[in-house]
Amino acid sequence: MAQKYSEYTVPGIGQENGHEIAGLLQGRLHALNDLQLVLKHVHWNVVGPNFIAVHEMLDPQTETVRGLVDELAERIATLGGSPSGLTGELVSARSWEDYPLHKAGVQEHLAELEKVYTGVVEDHRDVLSKVGQIDPITEDLLIGQVKELELFQWFIRSHLER
Amino acid sequence: MAQKYSEYTVPGIGQENGHEIAGLLQGRLHALNDLQLVLKHVHWNVVGPNFIAVHEMLDPQTETVRGLVDELAERIATLGGSPSGLTGELVSARSWEDYPLHKAGVQEHLAELEKVYTGVVEDHRDVLSKVGQIDPITEDLLIGQVKELELFQWFIRSHLER
Amino acid sequence: MAQKYSEYTVPGIGQENGHEIAGLLQGRLHALNDLQLVLKHVHWNVVGPNFIAVHEMLDPQTETVRGLVDELAERIATLGGSPSGLTGELVSARSWEDYPLHKAGVQEHLAELEKVYTGVVEDHRDVLSKVGQIDPITEDLLIGQVKELELFQWFIRSHLER
Amino acid sequence: MAQKYSEYTVPGIGQENGHEIAGLLQGRLHALNDLQLVLKHVHWNVVGPNFIAVHEMLDPQTETVRGLVDELAERIATLGGSPSGLTGELVSARSWEDYPLHKAGVQEHLAELEKVYTGVVEDHRDVLSKVGQIDPITEDLLIGQVKELELFQWFIRSHLER
Amino acid sequence: MAQKYSEYTVPGIGQENGHEIAGLLQGRLHALNDLQLVLKHVHWNVVGPNFIAVHEMLDPQTETVRGLVDELAERIATLGGSPSGLTGELVSARSWEDYPLHKAGVQEHLAELEKVYTGVVEDHRDVLSKVGQIDPITEDLLIGQVKELELFQWFIRSHLER
Amino acid sequence: MAQKYSEYTVPGIGQENGHEIAGLLQGRLHALNDLQLVLKHVHWNVVGPNFIAVHEMLDPQTETVRGLVDELAERIATLGGSPSGLTGELVSARSWEDYPLHKAGVQEHLAELEKVYTGVVEDHRDVLSKVGQIDPITEDLLIGQVKELELFQWFIRSHLER
Amino acid sequence: MAQKYSEYTVPGIGQENGHEIAGLLQGRLHALNDLQLVLKHVHWNVVGPNFIAVHEMLDPQTETVRGLVDELAERIATLGGSPSGLTGELVSARSWEDYPLHKAGVQEHLAELEKVYTGVVEDHRDVLSKVGQIDPITEDLLIGQVKELELFQWFIRSHLER
Amino acid sequence: MAQKYSEYTVPGIGQENGHEIAGLLQGRLHALNDLQLVLKHVHWNVVGPNFIAVHEMLDPQTETVRGLVDELAERIATLGGSPSGLTGELVSARSWEDYPLHKAGVQEHLAELEKVYTGVVEDHRDVLSKVGQIDPITEDLLIGQVKELELFQWFIRSHLER
Amino acid sequence: MAQKYSEYTVPGIGQENGHEIAGLLQGRLHALNDLQLVLKHVHWNVVGPNFIAVHEMLDPQTETVRGLVDELAERIATLGGSPSGLTGELVSARSWEDYPLHKAGVQEHLAELEKVYTGVVEDHRDVLSKVGQIDPITEDLLIGQVKELELFQWFIRSHLER
Amino acid sequence: MAQKYSEYTVPGIGQENGHEIAGLLQGRLHALNDLQLVLKHVHWNVVGPNFIAVHEMLDPQTETVRGLVDELAERIATLGGSPSGLTGELVSARSWEDYPLHKAGVQEHLAELEKVYTGVVEDHRDVLSKVGQIDPITEDLLIGQVKELELFQWFIRSHLER
Amino acid sequence: MAQKYSEYTVPGIGQENGHEIAGLLQGRLHALNDLQLVLKHVHWNVVGPNFIAVHEMLDPQTETVRGLVDELAERIATLGGSPSGLTGELVSARSWEDYPLHKAGVQEHLAELEKVYTGVVEDHRDVLSKVGQIDPITEDLLIGQVKELELFQWFIRSHLER
Amino acid sequence: MAQKYSEYTVPGIGQENGHEIAGLLQGRLHALNDLQLVLKHVHWNVVGPNFIAVHEMLDPQTETVRGLVDELAERIATLGGSPSGLTGELVSARSWEDYPLHKAGVQEHLAELEKVYTGVVEDHRDVLSKVGQIDPITEDLLIGQVKELELFQWFIRSHLER
Repeated sequence: MAQKYSEYTVPGIGQENGHEIAGLLQGRLHALNDLQLVLKHVHWNVVGPNFIAVHEMLDPQTETVRGLVDELAERIATLGGSPSGLTGELVSARSWEDYPLHKAGVQEHLAELEKVYTGVVEDHRDVLSKVGQIDPITEDLLIGQVKELELFQWFIRSHLER
Repeated sequence: MAQKYSEYTVPGIGQENGHEIAGLLQGRLHALNDLQLVLKHVHWNVVGPNFIAVHEMLDPQTETVRGLVDELAERIATLGGSPSGLTGELVSARSWEDYPLHKAGVQEHLAELEKVYTGVVEDHRDVLSKVGQIDPITEDLLIGQVKELELFQWFIRSHLER
Repeated sequence: MAQKYSEYTVPGIGQENGHEIAGLLQGRLHALNDLQLVLKHVHWNVVGPNFIAVHEMLDPQTETVRGLVDELAERIATLGGSPSGLTGELVSARSWEDYPLHKAGVQEHLAELEKVYTGVVEDHRDVLSKVGQIDPITEDLLIGQVKELELFQWFIRSHLER
Repeated sequence: MAQKYSEYTVPGIGQENGHEIAGLLQGRLHALNDLQLVLKHVHWNVVGPNFIAVHEMLDPQTETVRGLVDELAERIATLGGSPSGLTGELVSARSWEDYPLHKAGVQEHLAELEKVYTGVVEDHRDVLSKVGQIDPITEDLLIGQVKELELFQWFIRSHLER
Repeated sequence: MAQKYSEYTVPGIGQENGHEIAGLLQGRLHALNDLQLVLKHVHWNVVGPNFIAVHEMLDPQTETVRGLVDELAERIATLGGSPSGLTGELVSARSWEDYPLHKAGVQEHLAELEKVYTGVVEDHRDVLSKVGQIDPITEDLLIGQVKELELFQWFIRSHLER
Repeated sequence: MAQKYSEYTVPGIGQENGHEIAGLLQGRLHALNDLQLVLKHVHWNVVGPNFIAVHEMLDPQTETVRGLVDELAERIATLGGSPSGLTGELVSARSWEDYPLHKAGVQEHLAELEKVYTGVVEDHRDVLSKVGQIDPITEDLLIGQVKELELFQWFIRSHLER
Repeated sequence: MAQKYSEYTVPGIGQENGHEIAGLLQGRLHALNDLQLVLKHVHWNVVGPNFIAVHEMLDPQTETVRGLVDELAERIATLGGSPSGLTGELVSARSWEDYPLHKAGVQEHLAELEKVYTGVVEDHRDVLSKVGQIDPITEDLLIGQVKELELFQWFIRSHLER
Repeated sequence: MAQKYSEYTVPGIGQENGHEIAGLLQGRLHALNDLQLVLKHVHWNVVGPNFIAVHEMLDPQTETVRGLVDELAERIATLGGSPSGLTGELVSARSWEDYPLHKAGVQEHLAELEKVYTGVVEDHRDVLSKVGQIDPITEDLLIGQVKELELFQWFIRSHLER
Repeated sequence: MAQKYSEYTVPGIGQENGHEIAGLLQGRLHALNDLQLVLKHVHWNVVGPNFIAVHEMLDPQTETVRGLVDELAERIATLGGSPSGLTGELVSARSWEDYPLHKAGVQEHLAELEKVYTGVVEDHRDVLSKVGQIDPITEDLLIGQVKELELFQWFIRSHLER
Repeated sequence: MAQKYSEYTVPGIGQENGHEIAGLLQGRLHALNDLQLVLKHVHWNVVGPNFIAVHEMLDPQTETVRGLVDELAERIATLGGSPSGLTGELVSARSWEDYPLHKAGVQEHLAELEKVYTGVVEDHRDVLSKVGQIDPITEDLLIGQVKELELFQWFIRSHLER
Repeated sequence: MAQKYSEYTVPGIGQENGHEIAGLLQGRLHALNDLQLVLKHVHWNVVGPNFIAVHEMLDPQTETVRGLVDELAERIATLGGSPSGLTGELVSARSWEDYPLHKAGVQEHLAELEKVYTGVVEDHRDVLSKVGQIDPITEDLLIGQVKELELFQWFIRSHLER
Repeated sequence: MAQKYSEYTVPGIGQENGHEIAGLLQGRLHALNDLQLVLKHVHWNVVGPNFIAVHEMLDPQTETVRGLVDELAERIATLGGSPSGLTGELVSARSWEDYPLHKAGVQEHLAELEKVYTGVVEDHRDVLSKVGQIDPITEDLLIGQVKELELFQWFIRSHLER
């Protein structure tokens, strides 16, 4: 579904630029909204001898990603867009499938989650390079998000490395 | 997608009963997972003279509903089920459409949200009456959830009443 | 004074049922509202060698009962009623007299307070048995209230027993 | 019902003076005790587009007025009196009627509440001018109470002004 | 050792009923008191690569079970009984043996603990079905306890599942 | 020992006035400094069936009186005086004897303490009436102190009254 | 710029009196608003061996003075006035010059600040003596403010004294 | 008034560059210092049915802007400048008039405030683009400030949009 | 049941010494584990006019003794032992009987509890004198425990003294 | 004044020993009680460019020493003694004079305070070596106190060293 | 010693780039690890009249720098490197000598510390300019670190300036 | 590098003794300073299925050891020494090599860390036995440190035991 725009954007970058960035951010919003749900899904479905440690590791990741979602959505609104947080629109718009596992061992889940993070980070870095020319504020916001996401990915990779 | 079950359920109610209840709860999990996303969506998209008060009222509702989601999912797992928190499965399984509004006035949003709550509560009460015969623990959990949801609905209705 | 009702009640139990329960709860609201005031009154008027311990024991009881009052009143409103918290209406509607003591010894006050708790609990249990058929949510709310009130009564009885 | 007095009052002002002031304060205690109940009553019964903001504004007012009630009652006891916090005595002794509204719009309720505050403040100022000659401690206590009450009244007036 | 009873029970259910329920609860009190000690015992004696995660997981379980013990004992007293928390009486009265392991690997301990939880939950559900006819307050208390115990059991099972 | 004065006092009341008030306050400082030590002394030496309640009641009194001591001393310094907190000067300057009890029953101690409070409050009220003409700020500070001290005295009297 | 007044003032003192006091308080509001800015200015510009201690001492002073500003402004509004917090009006209305130092040594800054406090306190005491006849509540508010300001001045004087 | 400079600036950018940036930041410091005062001014002077919600929304904005002021001023000092926080200098140096409203309705105030934010953000973005070439640290600091200011502006715009 | 030992003990005292101390500490662990249960038992079973004060005094004692139990058990494990926290082993190994009272008056309970403390402290001091030659760390741990236990005993003795 | 003793002392050291130690500790109690008052006295009377840093450094010292006083006094009571916290007895019993300074410079005060600490520590170490033979618990308590006192003395010495 | 690398780096920048940046950051990690130790070293060794203020100022600096160390090391690991925090490697790799002072006056220490900060900041800015082309996330992390370090340097310079 | 000494040591043990102990403690300071860095190093470099649990277990160990470092260093200073916290001096003075692992599996790291703890504890116990004759305060400080270090070593050993 196409975004609706207000008649304003942030001061100093022009309405067209502002609305274009808002449009790019909508894709990142869907990605992070899906990620917060996947993190909870894994939180419930991991099993095995390391259950409790990984179960607990995922909650602060969920909490942080939910914060990033809110930050993105309010930036879209600030730029004059109308952020969509709806599941139907998310599923229609996304270019990826549902996360593939249900109840499964810790290492299997972490291996899948590692791939999810790679996808999210690559796309974030892609949008980041596009918006940097126009709006340093949005650029900085995305840099801060990538920093957190890459750290979480490292946590997960550290379980998989030998 | 069909639920996977472990070889156990909670002590004292029989595996078949336990897994049947887990199946019923999966529907409620999708409903509340959708609700938490809708609440954030409205949080970002309301406009008008009462913006800040309603914007802020919705955050504790989101926070509480996220807690109910977690409680439901862990009850499903405790009963031996494998809770799904995936958006694709949610959208396939649900019997309702996406929330219909994007950027809109406070009263319009609250009128829509009021209907969402009616649907969620009715279905919760429905499942509640079914599980009560078999498992008083799940029954009590659902009663507690309905209590919170009805209170939030009253908050919203109080804005609409004249 | 007769209660005023909104055109709604909670989803799933029918407007008539909802309003009838709201009516029953109004009586409990008066009882607990009176109780919170009596607890403070005793807090100020006890004297004797055990003064400070009993003086301090009553404050968390007051605090808790005030919470129960609020919970009851918001349940009435959720059911579509219009809760009355007015002293004139309370005094007209109640079936008991003012608490009989002013400044008096600790044991005298506790003996009187023990009777007050018996009355409140009996009436709560009475309403509880009536609403259970229609609305398990209100039933559960009253069960939770009785649990707290009986515990406080045990505190008081423990001072009186030999 | 007539107040009972202890054989003491605070050091340095004479027993007769102390008990006279205690008597004057009993009237203020009834007024503030009624006010805390009215504030909760309005908290439950306001409706309209500004519901949540006004609903939440009234809770800290209730909390503060309850603190003033306790302060007054313990001052009466300190002066040698026996403070009454009983509803029956309150209703018999008061010179005003029950608050007139149940479920009603925000502005209607605030307009009524504004009048209640005027009455309470005027009577407080009246007693304050009487006790100042005899007991600067009680005077100071009442000044502190009026300060808080007038501030709350300003909050309410600010909603009504155009 | 036989329980001693006060001359009262909670209002509204009759002294005989109250004391009978108190008797049934004493068995649950011994069971949970033993459980809190077993949880600490395991906390000290687990070894292996998952040591720290499981060692730390057991502390909030101990903390919660101690809370349930207190709740049960104070309910017995509220019903007019005299709760026993003595080890000699516990050992004489119980129908189970000491927990069988001392220093052992994490998975061995969790497998044993899983059985302990099954026993405790089954007996709790058994008493719960008996008291429900007479006293909904005790029933609700036991439902709340089973809910927590089953959740902890799920944590443990999740380590054992493959 | 005679007080030393700085060459300033607070703006607007004249140096002579300021230093005279500082001199009067030094007496109150000795009295409250002695009181904080007596309160601890009683805290350690009470015995009897009400031990723990009274032992604990005295600690917040000590804490508060220590705060009043600090407030008085810094007011003296603010007025240009040099506050003395030395025990030798205290004992030389005071007009009362050491507190008369060591290990003794609760009621005996409270009866003595009640007299101590009477003395402190009377002298505070005396100085308060003297400084009010010259410096409303010091007057207000002393009013606030008397309010706290009288409340503590009421706590103690409430144990003694029958 | 002349103050605008509402059609009300606080109950019991008459509209003319109320508005006159509000006018007097506007002057104090400008003074304290300027003071909070000067305190921050000094916080940034002090240098020398005692830098960190004085830099840190000024932050709680700023915090407190900002609280006094808010208290004054809301009192003006409560009295029916319209408080001005605007810099242009402040600079036009004030009778003093800008604070004279930028980057300078600690002792030089403290010597200047000491003079600023003298001016503010003298004017506060002046207004305080005028309003006391009419409105004891405003009088008490100003007494409380002077108490805090004189204490801060003592802190500063203590650095300067030898 | 011209800024005074120390003989240092931050390592690695050269003294001339450092001092030039400090000069540019002084303008932003005046703008934000004025903004914090305007926010409080509006906090006191808004009236109308949405009073409390908007009154409360402005306090965290004030708090945040005060933090930005401090951050800017300490950056100026770090760069070797001498930050001015004085009202007289502010009024002389600024290119805008005093905020135009006193007591007025919520929507009128928000419409004015929205314009103030536009001005502040545009000028911040302007300085940001100038300093980015020389000092990425100052650039990053300003980006962070613009992010916060634009979010607050969105809050305000959301009240005005229909 | 005989303790199991690991192949290590703490560095520097030799395996035999370490395991011998661990063996001595097991006796103290049983004693304190029994004490924490007795303290709760008394907490539930005291009655009489001082009920609430003594009921509340026992909870921090329980809390502290539970901490000492944990500290002892982890010291045993650190020394290479395998601490037993099992009730069956406790009852077999102990040299004392079950605590003799159930529901009884406060003074009776405190008189019994006083004897329990005497026993625990004497045995602690006995072990303390034995381990001091070999391991100053364990000695210090026991000294710290005796300090706390003797203080609690003094609380209890202070209720009994006349 | 001679100490009064109870008929008990701590278990395991004999009544005579216990009471002898209690007697020795009374001297330390007077010393620390005097020290807490001297620390406050200096807190109020220091002046000079380092005022605020030293003024603030002394408050946690006072707080800690007050804790040590309480610990000592309760140890005396635990040993069967009756601790004296009275100023008259303190002044009669002590072997040192009042602290010699009133208002004076920071370095002068710290030089005097350094001497006070030397005296207190030497006497503490003296008593410590006497009690160590009899009661390791009291020994450990004094060691802990000396540790804190020597650290505070180092703070003070560090101001004086060049 | 040469760094070991994992087979991954952060998504989107290529393994060679990632590992090169990790190598550059290792130098900064050594520098900040040394700095946190130097800050504590100075904390212990400063003497003179400003001792306490400077002693306390250095603790939050240590705390912050330790946080920066952790952030750097986890970024190196995230980029696929293996961060070294070992003292031997630090000393071999660094290009500077040990900090030159032990016990010395405040101003001497601050003058030395000021130089240390200059070195650290210059090298940070140097690396920052290199990584900015390749990885905006690492660039932003270093910008944030320089901001904090320059602020601390300003604190220190402010003590030295006249 | 040889330690520098002040002209004082703690009261009562003689300057030579004090300085000798300070010298012995310097060795322990280097050992613990190295340990805190090794703990962080391991925190960053562990990998494998138990990553998160061990990664998180090491942070409180680092935090505690940093506290012990500070305590040791301030004790050295209190004894008149000049504690060295410099890496160059540490590496020159130590008798052990750098920790041997970089990125490696959890069990490998824990096995190495276990050896590090053995070395630190043995040397601590060695110094402890030397200082006990002269200074019980330093002895007690070291006993407390060994207690913590041995507990941490047990945590690590529990991962390695089978």
